[in-house]
Parts: sequence; C-alpha cells; structure tokens
Amino acid sequence: MPAFRPVVFIGGILVLVLAASMAIPALVEWALGASHAPEYIPCVAIPAFLGITAVIASRGAPLKLGLREAYLLTSGLWFVLPLVASLPFMWTVPNLSLTDAYFEAVSGLTATGGTVIVGLDGLPPGVLLWRSMLQWVGGIGIVMMAVAVLPLLRVGGMQLMSRESSDTSDKILARPRELATWLISVYLGITVLCAIAYGVAGMGGFDALNHAMTTVSTAGFSTRDTSLGGFPPAVQWVSIVFMLAGAAPFLLYVQLLRGTSGFVPWSQIPPMLGVVAVGGALLAMTATQNGHGIVESIRHGLFTVTSIITTTGYASYDWQLWGPLAAAMALMLTFCGGCTGSTTGGIKIFRWQVLIRRFRITTQELIRPHRVVAQVYQGRPVGSEVVQSVMSFVLLVGAVTALTTVALTATGVDLVTAFSSAATSVTNVGPALGSIAGPAGTFAPLPDSAKWILSIAMLLGRLELLTVLVMLDPDFWRR
Amino acid sequence: MPAFRPVVFIGGILVLVLAASMAIPALVEWALGASHAPEYIPCVAIPAFLGITAVIASRGAPLKLGLREAYLLTSGLWFVLPLVASLPFMWTVPNLSLTDAYFEAVSGLTATGGTVIVGLDGLPPGVLLWRSMLQWVGGIGIVMMAVAVLPLLRVGGMQLMSRESSDTSDKILARPRELATWLISVYLGITVLCAIAYGVAGMGGFDALNHAMTTVSTAGFSTRDTSLGGFPPAVQWVSIVFMLAGAAPFLLYVQLLRGTSGFVPWSQIPPMLGVVAVGGALLAMTATQNGHGIVESIRHGLFTVTSIITTTGYASYDWQLWGPLAAAMALMLTFCGGCTGSTTGGIKIFRWQVLIRRFRITTQELIRPHRVVAQVYQGRPVGSEVVQSVMSFVLLVGAVTALTTVALTATGVDLVTAFSSAATSVTNVGPALGSIAGPAGTFAPLPDSAKWILSIAMLLGRLELLTVLVMLDPDFWRR
Repeated sequence: MPAFRPVVFIGGILVLVLAASMAIPALVEWALGASHAPEYIPCVAIPAFLGITAVIASRGAPLKLGLREAYLLTSGLWFVLPLVASLPFMWTVPNLSLTDAYFEAVSGLTATGGTVIVGLDGLPPGVLLWRSMLQWVGGIGIVMMAVAVLPLLRVGGMQLMSRESSDTSDKILARPRELATWLISVYLGITVLCAIAYGVAGMGGFDALNHAMTTVSTAGFSTRDTSLGGFPPAVQWVSIVFMLAGAAPFLLYVQLLRGTSGFVPWSQIPPMLGVVAVGGALLAMTATQNGHGIVESIRHGLFTVTSIITTTGYASYDWQLWGPLAAAMALMLTFCGGCTGSTTGGIKIFRWQVLIRRFRITTQELIRPHRVVAQVYQGRPVGSEVVQSVMSFVLLVGAVTALTTVALTATGVDLVTAFSSAATSVTNVGPALGSIAGPAGTFAPLPDSAKWILSIAMLLGRLELLTVLVMLDPDFWRR
Repeated sequence: MPAFRPVVFIGGILVLVLAASMAIPALVEWALGASHAPEYIPCVAIPAFLGITAVIASRGAPLKLGLREAYLLTSGLWFVLPLVASLPFMWTVPNLSLTDAYFEAVSGLTATGGTVIVGLDGLPPGVLLWRSMLQWVGGIGIVMMAVAVLPLLRVGGMQLMSRESSDTSDKILARPRELATWLISVYLGITVLCAIAYGVAGMGGFDALNHAMTTVSTAGFSTRDTSLGGFPPAVQWVSIVFMLAGAAPFLLYVQLLRGTSGFVPWSQIPPMLGVVAVGGALLAMTATQNGHGIVESIRHGLFTVTSIITTTGYASYDWQLWGPLAAAMALMLTFCGGCTGSTTGGIKIFRWQVLIRRFRITTQELIRPHRVVAQVYQGRPVGSEVVQSVMSFVLLVGAVTALTTVALTATGVDLVTAFSSAATSVTNVGPALGSIAGPAGTFAPLPDSAKWILSIAMLLGRLELLTVLVMLDPDFWRR
C-alpha cells in the first residue's frame, strides 16, 4: 500500500499555492473596476483552509516518495487541483454548475482547451485571466512531468527519455532544482516574447497576455467566442509560430541557451514541421475548393493543422465547412501530437517515429528471417521493452477513446460528437467535430454525465493513461 | 527477387478451377429454366484460356516455394481470383460495371459481405448461387490460410499458431494433405447441417442452401435485400448458432472427431461467447428502449452482435434505429472478430487475449519493477516477438482504417459512411453505418473510386495486412 502522508502533505502545499494564485485574478477584477473581486474571498478561503488542514495533519512524515507514491501523487494532483481551480468558475460566472466548472478547470489545467462557457466576450476579466493562468500553469506542469516524472514511471515508452541513463557529463542540469529553474525561465521568456508579438500583430494588451499564456502552453482557451478567428491574419501567423514553439521539446531551448550537451529528443521537430506542411497544404486545398483565396487558404490550412497537432485547439475558421476530407484529416491529425518534452498532449511524434521505424524493421525481418536489425533513436538503443511500451500506449489511446465513445453515446450524445469529443479529450486537443462541440461550438449543450466522462478522459490523456490505470490494479494497493 | 514461374503456375491452376466451378451456376440457370445460361460461356472461356496460357508458359519450373514466393502467391491469388470471379456479375447482372463486379467478387471471396447489388430478390438464381459459392470457397480458403500459411509467414502473431512447434505426437494431422481433407470435410459437414437446420426452421431449399454457404463462411451475402430480416425468428436463431460454429477454430472440430491431440486455440471460445452475451444484452436494452418486446429484443441483440463479431454482416433488423449507443457498440465490436483458425476476419479473440494479458503484466511490472512475469497462451510461451507482432497487427488495422477513411472522404463520401465502411471492410464484416451503406443499404451509391478503395481494404484485411504490406518494401524485390 502506498504511503499516504507524504502524498497528502505535498498535495496540501500545492492546494495552498493554487489558492494563493487566485489573488491575481481577484486583484485584476478590483483594478479594472469590475465587480467580482469579493467573490474570490470564499474561492481562496475554502481551499486555503483545506490545504492547511491537510498539511498539518500529514506534517512530519518522511518526504521520501517511492514508485507507488509517485504514481499516486501525480495522478491525485491532476484530479484534485481542478476541484480547487473550479471555484472561481462556479462563483463568478453566472449559471455555471459544479459539473461545468470542474470540466472547465480540467480543460484548463490539462491544457486541453474545450470550453463549456458560452459568451466569453462578456465574461469578467478576472475569470478570463484565471482560465489562461490555469492553462499556463498546466503547461509548465506538463513539461516538468515529461522531463522529470514520466521517465521514472516508465509509462508509454518515456523510459527512453530518462536523463539518468544519458551521459552524465552535464552535471549542472542533472540537479533537479536548477533544471526546473531553467525550464520555468525559458517558458516565461517564450510567453513574454509571444505576448509582445501578439501585441505588435494587432492584439490589445489583455488579449495578448491571455493568448500568449494559452498559446505557449498549447492549450487553446481564448478570450473570444470566435477564438483566433476574429483577429487579423498577422495575429494568426504569430500564433502558428508560437504554437510550434510550445510543441518543441523545452530541454532543447535550455540546451541552446546554455550550450550544454545531454539527450534531447530534437529529431521530432523535422517530422512535426513536415506534417504541418503536408497537412496544411491538403487542408488548404479543401479550403480553396470551398471558395477561399489561395493565401487565405494556406493560412487557415497551416493554422488548423498546427492547432490540432500541437493539441492547442484554437480555430481560425470553422474548417468543418470544407467538407468530409477536412473533417477526416482533422480527426486523424488529432492522434498525431507534438514533441515529447513539450506542453502538447496526445501520442506525440517520437512514438510515431519509434513505431514507423519498427514497422520497417519488422517487414525486413519477415522478408529475411535470419536478419536481426537493432532499433535506435538518436543513437540510443530502443529495446523491445520500449517498443512494447510505445505500442501499448497507442493501443490504450485507441481503447480509451473507444470506451469513452460508447459511454458518451450511452448518455444520448450523437456518434460523431461522441467519437470526436472522446478523441480530442484523450489527446488534449479540445474542440471536436459536429454541430455541437465543433470548432464553432462548445461542450455546454452536452448532458452533465457526458461532461464528467470527458473530464476523466482529459485527465487520463494528460497523465499518459498508464499513470492512472496502474492504480486500478489491486496489487497497487497491497502492502 | 521472388521466383515468378511457380507462382504463375499455381495461380493458373486455381484460375482454371474457379472457371470450371462456374459450370455449377450455369447448370442451375439451365435447370431452373432461367435464361442466363449462355452468358456463362464467355465467363468460363476467357479465364480458361488465360489459365491454360499461364500454366503452359510457366510449366516445368520447380514447385519449391520460398518465403517470398509464399507471400507473393498468397497475396497475388486474392487480388487476381476476384477478377475471374467478377465475370458472371458483369455479364449476367444488368447495369453492373467492372468496378461493381470486382467489388462484389472481392466482397464474396474475402467473405466480407457488403454488396453493390440492389434488387437481390429479382436476380437470376445462377448469380445468387455464384455469390454464395464464392463466399463458401473463400471461407475454406481462409481457414486453410490461417492453419497452414499465416503461421509460416509469421504475420500478426500467427507464429504462435504454428503447428510445427507443437508437440508432433500427432503424426497424421501433420501431413498437410490429410489435414486439408479433414478440414474440408468438416466444413462441408457443418454447411450441410446448417442447410438442413435452415430448412427445418422454415427456409425454402434454394435459400437454405445459399444461406448455409454464407453463414458457415461467416461471410454475409443473402439472397434477399432485407438479409435475414424477412425470415421467421427460428431461422435467425439457427443463423446465430451456425455463425458461431463458423467462428470457432476449425481444427477443434477435427480434433473432437478424431480424438487427436495437438495445439488448438480453443480458449478463444468462452470469451467470444461472453462478448455475444454481454454485447447482446446491451444491444437488446437499446432495442427495448425503442419499443421492441423483450424476447424480440434479445433475439435481435444476440443476432446483431453475433453477426458483427463473427464478421458475417447479416442483418435481422436495421439496428441503427436504436440510437447512437447501438451504433457506437456496433462500430467497436467491428474490431473484435471471431476465433483465429476460423472463417472470420478482423482482429480476432486470441489477439485481444494476448493484449489484455500483456496489459495486466505491464501494470504489475510497473508497480514492482523487479518482477518479471512470463506470458503464456494455453501453455505456450508468448515471447516478446509474438506480443510485438500482435500489437503491430492491431495498430496496422487502425492505421489502414484511418488512411482508408481519409481516402474515402477525398472521393466525397461523408465521414460516418467513410469511417464505418473503412472499418467494416478492413475487418471483413461488410455493411457499415449511415444512411447509404448501413445495414439497410448497399455500397451501390458510392463513387467508383470509393469502391476500388474499399476492395483493396477488404483484400488487405483478409490477408492480415502484413502479407501484402511486406511487398511494398523495396527489399522484397531485390535479389
């Protein structure tokens, strides 16, 4: 049985941090003269009380975390923190139920980007900022998890990314605290650059700040109901660049800035750009066939593909109007994902690289049974354990998507909405297909049960599935 | 480079056999006083001429087949024979193009069961019989391939089914010719039993014969536009029993009749029946919610699940009317499949057993990293090569389904039809979802390009994908 006390202790501290961070939207409300500042008092007070209780109750426990505590803490945090984060949604947005608020908070922290709020344009500035902050915090949490936690947990082939097994010549970055500081600085730096670029391209200050936070985290909340569609083309080009920046492995930036060595899975970047180019061209073709000009089509095509494969979920246009080919491509690209070690979700390029290389080796071995070809990834040996782990991950994404689809249809949701919502939730992309939750819609009309199912799907996807699923094994809870 | 001459020689002989078998529908036309007998003359003559030419041109070559010749022959036969088989469709059915005829022949020989012929009830008896014959012949071809060829080719984890590595105490069945004779006898015997049962349950003689051939081959062509829906309930119950009989490993029957030992993957049967029971109950629930009586709902529920997982494709009712849950379940069950070693297509139970067991082992190893658990299947060790092979297969089914979907939408087909048609073709189930190609429709309205895409998908699925895909590797064609 995992030790609960250190898990509760760390959880309590993070609840306190999240509660304290609500001061920022509260101050913005107050500074901008909006009237919702007092509503933040219970939002801060309740989790603060619970967090302090948790910390006091569990203090003094040794802070050494074993493997099972690491699973429990990682999963537990992602399920519990959205509860805290949902309070401002429930109490400062009119007519938002607990279900809606939890969905929105999960979509925020997991950097998914599907929303249940209709009428963003009229929302108080504090809560708009809170949505963006959640995604921004979620984004850096995702990077940290990919760099520091998942390789240890050995889920989904992430053991290949382990920094332990890399050459340890780079002593400084081996120190976790310094590495974290560098990652956060880079993340902050790119966000500031993005906000400035948005401003130059024609966005107002508040919009630029909010969108910078949800672009670099490849998360996708917007301050507008029309997402990026209502902004000038220059803004959309800026967005393409920074979505891709957020989808690159963040260790690469640290390495480039510091000139250090060490394993960084940079080889994901060329294929990612290739998918954007080819997918963008194909989508642009469907757009021209529907009466758009060529330059406009290329912009919307590149934007849409980038938004989907980086799992951001912004829309520059309701691309469903371009017909079934566009919809099918969007659905397929949903399973692509960005680079491992970035803020993106989904399957991610490195896994596809491992799979495609493995497929080629398999056919070669079938043709000449006596040949054995060793698989490598950027010089690292890819053992059969990693291959199996990657394959299991992709299969689990499929299985969870299928089961989520069936569960959603059981709540009365139509098949297209159900399947596409399941897919875009498990991969943390956000908006789905169809007339309800498509790029021009929201998840608001879905029944409450469907929203809970999708919340769980988003969390499962964000935790790369196995991090949660191991806890379903009775062995996990045994001594 | 593979040796072509023995491949052409064996191919030529099988073309001759197929041409000769057209005498049966021709005789039936003549005997029943239908007027289409003369149209069979060119249908027989043209392939007879080509077959004789092929045999003469390639005679004298050593008949020893290497691994690459085995791939080429297996794949080549399944692509070429439907061309021959399509002639009676093209020349005795009014308004059927080459495209339609090839689709119908592929759907026949691969035992898929989707049709492009509207108005089956008014079709000449010869061509109805030819459709059923193709499926029946295809069915036994599939069993032979699964027992004798695929384990040697080591595709999709089928190496686990290898009879070579089993205890060779059973010397008699180790002789291929005797084994083939036994399998054909069993297949024939079950078909005769099925025809009798259909007759007793209320079908006329001609219908009973045709449906027996397409039931035991789990293939799904019917002599009626309404499929099994127009026959009395007793007929549908008989159909459930014999679809399941066709979905069981055929070696099991041989073993039960002869009392011999040897490896037969019988342990697939209980889970298959479990899926039928649980899936049937859930579908029956959706049926009762749509106004059907309980007994009727159970019958339609069990029939529909059995028809889908055995990859038969009969319909007793347009179950799409039961709502999105029924549709989603049907789509998910499409990927289930029956038992390996039977006439069914798709992923098949044994692969799911390997995957689920592997998943459980993986979580155990994640929780306790120092534990190593060995995987077995009915006492046989399941090495990581087999696990990887199974995983690759399931992933390839997904990838081919996705690419087929995109290709279909590029021809203008709507998303639901495209995705479901792709899925039911790759898995050789047959009818899809949606208003066009659903259980109450046909593939006739689809554009020609879509029919060719689906024909290729059916062939790929039937050949368990890798048997064809290895030939795309340039290495395959090198010396």
